[in-house]
Amino acid sequence: MRTEKSPLREYALAKRAQRLARPLHAEGGEAISLDSGYAFPAIFPDLTRAAERALTTYRSQSLQYGTPFGLTEMREWIVEYIRSEGGETALEEILVVSGAKRGIELVCRLLADEGDSVVVTAPMYFTAIPILRSFGLEFIEVAQDEEGMDVDALSGELRERERQGKRRPKFIYQVTDFHNPTGVTMSLRRREALVALAASLGIPILEDNPYRKLRFEGSEIPSLKGLDRDGGVIEVGTFSKLLAPGLRIGWVCAPQPLAARMAQLKADGGTTPLTQRIIVEFLQAGGLAPHIERARVAYREHRDLMVAVVKQEIPDASFAIPEGGYYLWLKFPDGVDTDELAGRAYDAGVSPIAGSVFFAREDVGHPKNYLRLAYSRATPEEIDKGVKLLAAAYRSMK
Amino acid sequence: MRTEKSPLREYALAKRAQRLARPLHAEGGEAISLDSGYAFPAIFPDLTRAAERALTTYRSQSLQYGTPFGLTEMREWIVEYIRSEGGETALEEILVVSGAKRGIELVCRLLADEGDSVVVTAPMYFTAIPILRSFGLEFIEVAQDEEGMDVDALSGELRERERQGKRRPKFIYQVTDFHNPTGVTMSLRRREALVALAASLGIPILEDNPYRKLRFEGSEIPSLKGLDRDGGVIEVGTFSKLLAPGLRIGWVCAPQPLAARMAQLKADGGTTPLTQRIIVEFLQAGGLAPHIERARVAYREHRDLMVAVVKQEIPDASFAIPEGGYYLWLKFPDGVDTDELAGRAYDAGVSPIAGSVFFAREDVGHPKNYLRLAYSRATPEEIDKGVKLLAAAYRSMK
Repeated sequence: MRTEKSPLREYALAKRAQRLARPLHAEGGEAISLDSGYAFPAIFPDLTRAAERALTTYRSQSLQYGTPFGLTEMREWIVEYIRSEGGETALEEILVVSGAKRGIELVCRLLADEGDSVVVTAPMYFTAIPILRSFGLEFIEVAQDEEGMDVDALSGELRERERQGKRRPKFIYQVTDFHNPTGVTMSLRRREALVALAASLGIPILEDNPYRKLRFEGSEIPSLKGLDRDGGVIEVGTFSKLLAPGLRIGWVCAPQPLAARMAQLKADGGTTPLTQRIIVEFLQAGGLAPHIERARVAYREHRDLMVAVVKQEIPDASFAIPEGGYYLWLKFPDGVDTDELAGRAYDAGVSPIAGSVFFAREDVGHPKNYLRLAYSRATPEEIDKGVKLLAAAYRSMK
Repeated sequence: MRTEKSPLREYALAKRAQRLARPLHAEGGEAISLDSGYAFPAIFPDLTRAAERALTTYRSQSLQYGTPFGLTEMREWIVEYIRSEGGETALEEILVVSGAKRGIELVCRLLADEGDSVVVTAPMYFTAIPILRSFGLEFIEVAQDEEGMDVDALSGELRERERQGKRRPKFIYQVTDFHNPTGVTMSLRRREALVALAASLGIPILEDNPYRKLRFEGSEIPSLKGLDRDGGVIEVGTFSKLLAPGLRIGWVCAPQPLAARMAQLKADGGTTPLTQRIIVEFLQAGGLAPHIERARVAYREHRDLMVAVVKQEIPDASFAIPEGGYYLWLKFPDGVDTDELAGRAYDAGVSPIAGSVFFAREDVGHPKNYLRLAYSRATPEEIDKGVKLLAAAYRSMK
């Protein structure tokens, strides 16, 4: 069933989400930012030398249109990155895009029609919700526990849909490591089960794993792409968390005909050849590994501090300690409305994000007592002060 | 009527177009490139100082996520640019995007559903064809003459469709100055007639005017946006032709609710804040006007040379001399198949683009005897040699 496009209804929906996550995307806001997954500016790399080379030695290439697939050196690096994770891939499967979100959008454009369905976790990465919704997709929500997505529940849900004669979902969207917003890392057995389930039903998995290299402790677990032997996992990746978001370079790794078709669909004149070249220069100069180590150290400190201050200041909030990534997912006692709490916190000068915006379905109820805190962007002083302001806002609700 | 997405059918269609425009987007091709609308590398500006400032003074902003609308200084400059053309606009109508093509795509996502129609010229900017087609749009083709789009013919066509109970097209797509591929600049009276017709029917115009500042002679004519007093013209713009394509920065100017909704849809984490800042620094240092003057001088020389060599070497080809822009649109005698000619030319070492790829509709016949030559990217030596190779390929067909 096709409905006429209604931009303004979608606009109203998105406005509501924006209101609940108020200072997000605001320029020069005054509140302490514990909301968005911005990077910590103090660890931004020095790219001046890479840029100078890009704009002199490579000027005629950096300032020209690029090929839709991306710079060959960039794609070769991505191939090696994926192979180093145990993934099977080749150059022709790699498409450079302007960030992972653009990759998600292209996958939707290619695979999904209005009225189709997509499997997501509940809660899920909230920026992906309007992207998926803008394609008219129905959400099949799957719960998570401390091992990540409940694959048995998904299997049951898909069988039930099959029984009802419903069409299979077009893909399964999953943030595997240090999930956004819950911080949960999917266990190996769940990963194996998910890859096997998807392969048995012929449903592609869209793996979005931006935080993977920001592991503070514990051992890496193979990615879904690393476990996939059937070409059933499409991966979107990004330099936003590896290096810096302002470069707007990410990738899609997909079977060749899909990658080729996405290359045509993206119609972007070659994803910013200048910033691709800057990144390649930085990578080739060996800058990435030390940068990631700096990022790990900084974000681990931020996490440790936030964990300590939350435990001390908001003992009512429970949470799992993430082994990496950017976020704490706080559970408040039943009956606490975090939409209200987030509003009070914002008025007090700190910006968390209410848990409600991380749930995709609007036609079913979700718990109202979760809240996401990002420890990535704020300084230690801001983390300390911000959590204390949040605690005061919480106490004001009792 | 909704049809299941068929990526691979579209892929096959696009592959055909690619074959006809073979070396386009090829990296390191050997043929002399008279095909794509690439810029002349010898006039690329020196952006090293702007980049250094972007990566030092503005580092924490340039390397961070940006706001979806774009840098405020960038948007203010765009407002002034549009106002200097007589257009009415304001900051909240300006959305920075990664190039005009992305703007076209966003307009489609917002306004058009599968099965809707769109008005285009025949021939038209060929890169826009797969974008529009990927949204399932039906093409209403309008002929052009030396004054540009035949607005009377369009008016008649729309009346006839109305009579048949067909829905109005969702927008009218037009390249106003130095049209791609024909080089034609729409006359003032046609512009006025088009704006009036569109306003009377409530059909938005999508004006795409990348070459406007590359005028070699004659006087500027107000843009459609400059003539619009009803908010009926959406403009897409780009720095690709003003400055350099590799920066991937363009804009959409649209009524505020549409601009706001597109800002949400684009989901790009803020269009490359680094290259936006580099451009702003370059603009604020007064670099643009001298750069455009250099570009005018270079492209005028290229055009003059290509005109002279084509007249001498291929007297059978007729064409109008464009007052600006990048292209010559050659008409060969009836019966000449330029698909074949382009293939022979490519084998001989020069790459024109066969006229057939510039026509959107596949269900009606179009003339087969046109060919587009771009004089933008090639050096004067390459233009001279390339046209001679084309002439030899043409003679080989007789």
